[in-house]
Amino acid sequence: MSLQGKMLIAQGGGPTAVINQSLVGAVLEARKYPQVTRIYGALNGVSGIINEKFVDLTQETEHNLEMVANTTSSALMSTRDKPDAEYCKKMFEVMRAHDIRYFFYIGGNDSSDTVRIVGEHAKSEGYEMRAVHIPKTIDNDLMVNDHTPGYGSAARFVAQAFMGANLDNRALPGVYIGVVMGRHAGFLTAAAAMAQQFPDDGPHLVYVPERVFDTDKFLADVKKVYDQYGRCVIAVSEGIQDENGVPIITKFADKVEKDAHGNVQLSGSGALGDVLTKHIKDNLNIKRVRADTFGYLQRSFMGCVSEVDQIEAREVGERAAQYAILHNLEGSVTIHRVGDYAVDYQLTDITKIAALTKLMPAEFINEEGNHVTEAFRSYVRPLLGSNMPVAGRLRAPQVEKLVK
Amino acid sequence: MSLQGKMLIAQGGGPTAVINQSLVGAVLEARKYPQVTRIYGALNGVSGIINEKFVDLTQETEHNLEMVANTTSSALMSTRDKPDAEYCKKMFEVMRAHDIRYFFYIGGNDSSDTVRIVGEHAKSEGYEMRAVHIPKTIDNDLMVNDHTPGYGSAARFVAQAFMGANLDNRALPGVYIGVVMGRHAGFLTAAAAMAQQFPDDGPHLVYVPERVFDTDKFLADVKKVYDQYGRCVIAVSEGIQDENGVPIITKFADKVEKDAHGNVQLSGSGALGDVLTKHIKDNLNIKRVRADTFGYLQRSFMGCVSEVDQIEAREVGERAAQYAILHNLEGSVTIHRVGDYAVDYQLTDITKIAALTKLMPAEFINEEGNHVTEAFRSYVRPLLGSNMPVAGRLRAPQVEKLVK
Repeated sequence: MSLQGKMLIAQGGGPTAVINQSLVGAVLEARKYPQVTRIYGALNGVSGIINEKFVDLTQETEHNLEMVANTTSSALMSTRDKPDAEYCKKMFEVMRAHDIRYFFYIGGNDSSDTVRIVGEHAKSEGYEMRAVHIPKTIDNDLMVNDHTPGYGSAARFVAQAFMGANLDNRALPGVYIGVVMGRHAGFLTAAAAMAQQFPDDGPHLVYVPERVFDTDKFLADVKKVYDQYGRCVIAVSEGIQDENGVPIITKFADKVEKDAHGNVQLSGSGALGDVLTKHIKDNLNIKRVRADTFGYLQRSFMGCVSEVDQIEAREVGERAAQYAILHNLEGSVTIHRVGDYAVDYQLTDITKIAALTKLMPAEFINEEGNHVTEAFRSYVRPLLGSNMPVAGRLRAPQVEKLVK
Repeated sequence: MSLQGKMLIAQGGGPTAVINQSLVGAVLEARKYPQVTRIYGALNGVSGIINEKFVDLTQETEHNLEMVANTTSSALMSTRDKPDAEYCKKMFEVMRAHDIRYFFYIGGNDSSDTVRIVGEHAKSEGYEMRAVHIPKTIDNDLMVNDHTPGYGSAARFVAQAFMGANLDNRALPGVYIGVVMGRHAGFLTAAAAMAQQFPDDGPHLVYVPERVFDTDKFLADVKKVYDQYGRCVIAVSEGIQDENGVPIITKFADKVEKDAHGNVQLSGSGALGDVLTKHIKDNLNIKRVRADTFGYLQRSFMGCVSEVDQIEAREVGERAAQYAILHNLEGSVTIHRVGDYAVDYQLTDITKIAALTKLMPAEFINEEGNHVTEAFRSYVRPLLGSNMPVAGRLRAPQVEKLVK
């Protein structure tokens, strides 16, 4: 017999295009069980828990929840707070006061660690509660998971952006650099490769944080592509580092901002793109060099979503509710690829995911460390969803010159 | 009786999402007339004409042309060359050698000036040729036209981007600045306002080049919004200037790059966003300040297009061919709003458009100069096309606090 009491759900970390699918999936599934007396949402993630900022999702209409599910970014709003033991104790006290018996936290590896600590705290206090982590991150860097909800839609945005950037660069040639989110894992940057249709299409070079970024090798790569095609489109992760693990962005920036987790601020600034642009202009005889930093558009743009990602994000939410309420279990819901293309879901021991980071496997990165492999393309293709745009190109033959 | 001979078509200036609709519209319409013996495309705009780089579009299949029509960015590729008298003379000589009797140039105000000069040159040489300018520009800054092909799709991208940025900023509050293309005209930046659904939605502030950008007033505006909502989303044109007409970007940048037209480089760099971010951080007590520069994504992103824009871009191409071939006329095809919403097309004397820039009318900008008016919203709404995404928001009531 499962626990009777209230359910609490929250969203942490960076938003994604489908994070509300998971929220709505868990809420609508939980409504089916009479032992769930109320469904609360905490505003602004864990900070809403210690501050007791709850809203009563029991009173939401199904229609409005479906509207929210199709809306990007965290509807319950988010936080960058990373709870320590004291913080988790406060969270637990608030939850106990409200008779919370089911706790769901939608987030990445930091959030899963929070679920782990809170769950352990409840156990040590002898309080019966099921804590389940629901995965999401555009970085696609959660262990055990084949991929994570949020990644497919962000990957689709990046691929569509590079399709356009490649066409633009073909029309007005030069060097184009697109800076993509990804501090440690290059999955999202690698998705840029899906923009390539014709053999000479960009991105011609793809740099991920899993490989050391050598500024000399970079120049040689750019020169080689530019000499061949008269242009060069580059995808680069914001988190690229030198051989000592120093982020390239910090090597040139005047002043570096750090977040609450002590991480260097990589997004919300055009610094890395400008640094690489200058490096090319200073060292290669190429006049037109441009950089775009895709920034927050990658994770929250309204109107570019993978329906595969949507469905899976919904289902991890539903599964989380089932594991906790129907099966009386806790842990982290994980996605496993069981076919081409088919997935299954499991409940995984949270210690296998909490605070850990999955990087791109070696077989996804080419030998030179400047592009992806076919294995990566096969991996990512189904995640982008259907109806990807296709670029047409004129095939008209050249006309013989008369004037010369 | 109209002229017998070849047709030449080219694309100039910055690409748009629908510029190939105009190309294909003109080509397919021209195929209906037997007096058009061949249809050539010049590669890379006017530079492809002086260099005699023509492709024979007569040999394109209709199916492939339709694929190209649905592809962003200039399929014939583009150029930033701005021809002088000597350049136009060379162009004309090549055209005469190939018996070109119909010349179509798809572009903005610089391109229309080229059409004017070449047309005048042909006349002065007594050579019978019809030269027609086909409008396009995401800047929406062509005189006479109610709006221009390319603008609606770019405006839609900007609106969707700000919908997402607003949701992201709501989830993780702070100040967010989105830098939008637009050197002189603020139409595209103003489209960001269409992201607002709920009264507290961003963008809360919109700055266009038509109004002097006062950095002190800017700080006061940001502070006011931030004090009210605890967050602030800002749309700003890359071309904003101070009271002396000096671009804000040049006031802080170390080194300023200029293009072939002597214009300061505004795009392909995160400089303005970083400058404004620093200005806020240095002067207001706000910790989280982020800037994205939308860059080339605005004009070439694959998969975000207004079908109204597509249809009109197609039709200005078809009309251009009809005016020249069927009616034996020349000039610039212009779009006129004749209903709510309906348009009509006219052929306008090219001197009324060539090298001129239309700015936002005063009634589109609010009195404070930091947002748009309802008149602007009414103007732009139909141009975005149908099925704009709609953001849902939770309505759940707050739960009473039990702990404190």
